[in-house]
Amino acid sequence: MAESGLVAVLDYIRANHERFVSELSDLCAMESVSAWGRSLEQTAEAVGQSLERAGAKVSIVKTSGQPIVVGKAEGGSDRTIVFYDHYDVQPPDPLEQWTAPPFEPAVRDGCLFARGTADNKGNLMARVQAVEAWNRAGGGLPISVVFIVEGEEETGSPHLEEFTRENAAWLGRADGVIWEAGYRDVTGRPTVSLGVKGICYLELTARGASSDLHSSMATLVPNPAWRLTWALATIKDKDERILVEGFYDAVRDPTREDLALLETIPDNSAETASRLGLEGLLLRLTGHQANLRNFFQPTATICGLLSGYTGKGEKTVLPSTAMAKVDFRLVADQDPADIESKVRAHLARQGFDDIEVRAFAGERPARTDPKSPLVGVIRRAMSRVYEQEPVVYPTMTGSGPMPLFTDLGLPVAGFGVGHAGSRVHAPDENISLEDYRLGTELVAALLDGDSWAG
Amino acid sequence: MAESGLVAVLDYIRANHERFVSELSDLCAMESVSAWGRSLEQTAEAVGQSLERAGAKVSIVKTSGQPIVVGKAEGGSDRTIVFYDHYDVQPPDPLEQWTAPPFEPAVRDGCLFARGTADNKGNLMARVQAVEAWNRAGGGLPISVVFIVEGEEETGSPHLEEFTRENAAWLGRADGVIWEAGYRDVTGRPTVSLGVKGICYLELTARGASSDLHSSMATLVPNPAWRLTWALATIKDKDERILVEGFYDAVRDPTREDLALLETIPDNSAETASRLGLEGLLLRLTGHQANLRNFFQPTATICGLLSGYTGKGEKTVLPSTAMAKVDFRLVADQDPADIESKVRAHLARQGFDDIEVRAFAGERPARTDPKSPLVGVIRRAMSRVYEQEPVVYPTMTGSGPMPLFTDLGLPVAGFGVGHAGSRVHAPDENISLEDYRLGTELVAALLDGDSWAG
Repeated sequence: MAESGLVAVLDYIRANHERFVSELSDLCAMESVSAWGRSLEQTAEAVGQSLERAGAKVSIVKTSGQPIVVGKAEGGSDRTIVFYDHYDVQPPDPLEQWTAPPFEPAVRDGCLFARGTADNKGNLMARVQAVEAWNRAGGGLPISVVFIVEGEEETGSPHLEEFTRENAAWLGRADGVIWEAGYRDVTGRPTVSLGVKGICYLELTARGASSDLHSSMATLVPNPAWRLTWALATIKDKDERILVEGFYDAVRDPTREDLALLETIPDNSAETASRLGLEGLLLRLTGHQANLRNFFQPTATICGLLSGYTGKGEKTVLPSTAMAKVDFRLVADQDPADIESKVRAHLARQGFDDIEVRAFAGERPARTDPKSPLVGVIRRAMSRVYEQEPVVYPTMTGSGPMPLFTDLGLPVAGFGVGHAGSRVHAPDENISLEDYRLGTELVAALLDGDSWAG
Repeated sequence: MAESGLVAVLDYIRANHERFVSELSDLCAMESVSAWGRSLEQTAEAVGQSLERAGAKVSIVKTSGQPIVVGKAEGGSDRTIVFYDHYDVQPPDPLEQWTAPPFEPAVRDGCLFARGTADNKGNLMARVQAVEAWNRAGGGLPISVVFIVEGEEETGSPHLEEFTRENAAWLGRADGVIWEAGYRDVTGRPTVSLGVKGICYLELTARGASSDLHSSMATLVPNPAWRLTWALATIKDKDERILVEGFYDAVRDPTREDLALLETIPDNSAETASRLGLEGLLLRLTGHQANLRNFFQPTATICGLLSGYTGKGEKTVLPSTAMAKVDFRLVADQDPADIESKVRAHLARQGFDDIEVRAFAGERPARTDPKSPLVGVIRRAMSRVYEQEPVVYPTMTGSGPMPLFTDLGLPVAGFGVGHAGSRVHAPDENISLEDYRLGTELVAALLDGDSWAG
């Protein structure tokens, strides 16, 4: 019965593929950039309508920030799976590097290009459409489903905790959370991720004279661009070692199980480098060493630099300000507030207490046990749809509010419709339409009782 | 006769002040930004027309770059003074820091604000108008005058050498060159400068992956913003010492006469710092040490930095490129081509041969002997107009193609209509209308035979 249900559901997904892509395109056309505070309420409304069409009961929950869309659909068993997604997207800058405008979704070479296709509207809609398929073609959902779709994931989810705290009682009884993001790897294998890295995002500003000056005054006037450069150079050295005192103190060593999991992860270093136009990865890492660093090491990244004259040609100016945006990706058990205070202390100790530090909302790292039953369920569903075993990663290398769910004792795992060339957070973000269909089928298989029977 | 001539000339300048300001405003409204290659031929035409109205014979000389406007006006003696000026201006960026649009000249608080007012259209027009005054009200010019007005000063004067080489025979017989720029100091005293610093202007570019990436990839992908930061930090240290090997080798020690001249230069460090919104000057320098550094030390200045996301809020991006614009102001006898090759060698030696270096047209430093008769002529003219002795600086701290003239054996000295708050190369560039009138009177006095009588 369940098996025949799934067959009909998969047929429905294939038959409705074009409409599903069209619905996704409509959602990606909405400019829901949370950093800009734009179009967010309208996008939340649109998500709510999609959930209602799929057969869920929807409530738009107000927060101190952007609304959270909650959709609940009853299933035929006492199991409940939670889908965590978000309807906001990253800013599309730099615009000039997009082949076509970022909010005018377009299909090229079998891929749908638009900001948000991979992160995270594609996954959101695949999950909504899988629920619709069960309700329309499968005789109803085998298990219950809850959607939690927020609008501030890309700005650090500052108001999701209000929601998870207030709803902890019923949330904590769920069987697991499917995280927002996931990708087929550079060789096309499906992947599952069992955690997130944390993040501490800082904006550093150095100030000099009260206005920009002719650079001939550089003999006598401090230059904030130099101050910032010197300060940044004390944060990380050429060997990629982060020099902030105590930065690595809380880093948890990989367990024997972590290391065993690493052994199952293929060495895609050459393919990854080639796809990115590089001769090799950072520090010429390959294989186990690359994977160890990728999943278990924190980073410090200059995300942006701005000072003085940046147009074409020459302008001999002594700038009055210089700005850097720097993110630190954190691993268990680092804490963003602790890292922020360590960076501040480091700058002061190095003689850079003139540099202003502004911190954006930080996020903690989180990890789920690879032996959790949820991981087995996902493995079985993936094998049914992709006809190959997934690669299981101990953590995503990105960040998100996963600790709000793992704190409730819930296992959390992420997968999705992206691929290794999806250019998440970058120009020409895209997903393959085949991945979109398969990803929708995977969600349908996950919701099938047989996947949970083990 | 000459004295009564000057009295009438000064009366004419005062009587025509409003029209003169209006003519200057018209010229400043032209967007002759040489870095953009915009409006330059029209501006050259306008300058030629002004010179013709003043009584000069004009030729617009074609070069491989922008045209040079040459104006010749015969005087009543065999002396000839050359005015070197330029009709191009710096880019007006950052636009948002201007109180009013940079190419819409406007008077506020007795000052005329627009790009080019101080550098260099104000000086150019003051000189043209002084010639007009002698021809209309003074019975003709006491000495001959040649204007050389180029359109590429702000981009390193790459084609002026063609002109000075082809015209070396008659140019070399002139009695001296009045340089384009000059300012009253922070206490209001008129100043004369007897040289220029050289300049080597470089654009450094670091490249990483073929596109911007999600910053979660920072474990494995090199970040050009870090590469650039580390490379820059090897160029100059926190103590303002330039670390490029051999950088100081050609620096000429100040002579006893240089040091004697320095002793006559007032200590304006406190006023300068205060005007710039600083608690103190760089390295807390004051007095003799500040002046020594200002006139006899080279600099390395980050003029611009650009990488990744520079908008508001947070974007977790791993940039694909990072760019810095860096200028080196050079003192006698440093050479820009030598400095460029030393910077390239330095970067290679430090392990940064991946960083691309693009050099813009460099300029050499130049110096004129303080004992030159021209300096005495200017001192006398200044005393007549300002009723105080000028401050004589051994060199400007800016750059220009002065070596093309000193190479011909000509003494060169600069003065002009700017003031310490003129914000040259910066937003809200301006001159005071009183300085403009006095500066025009000074040129008229310089052209008077009595100033040359000694």
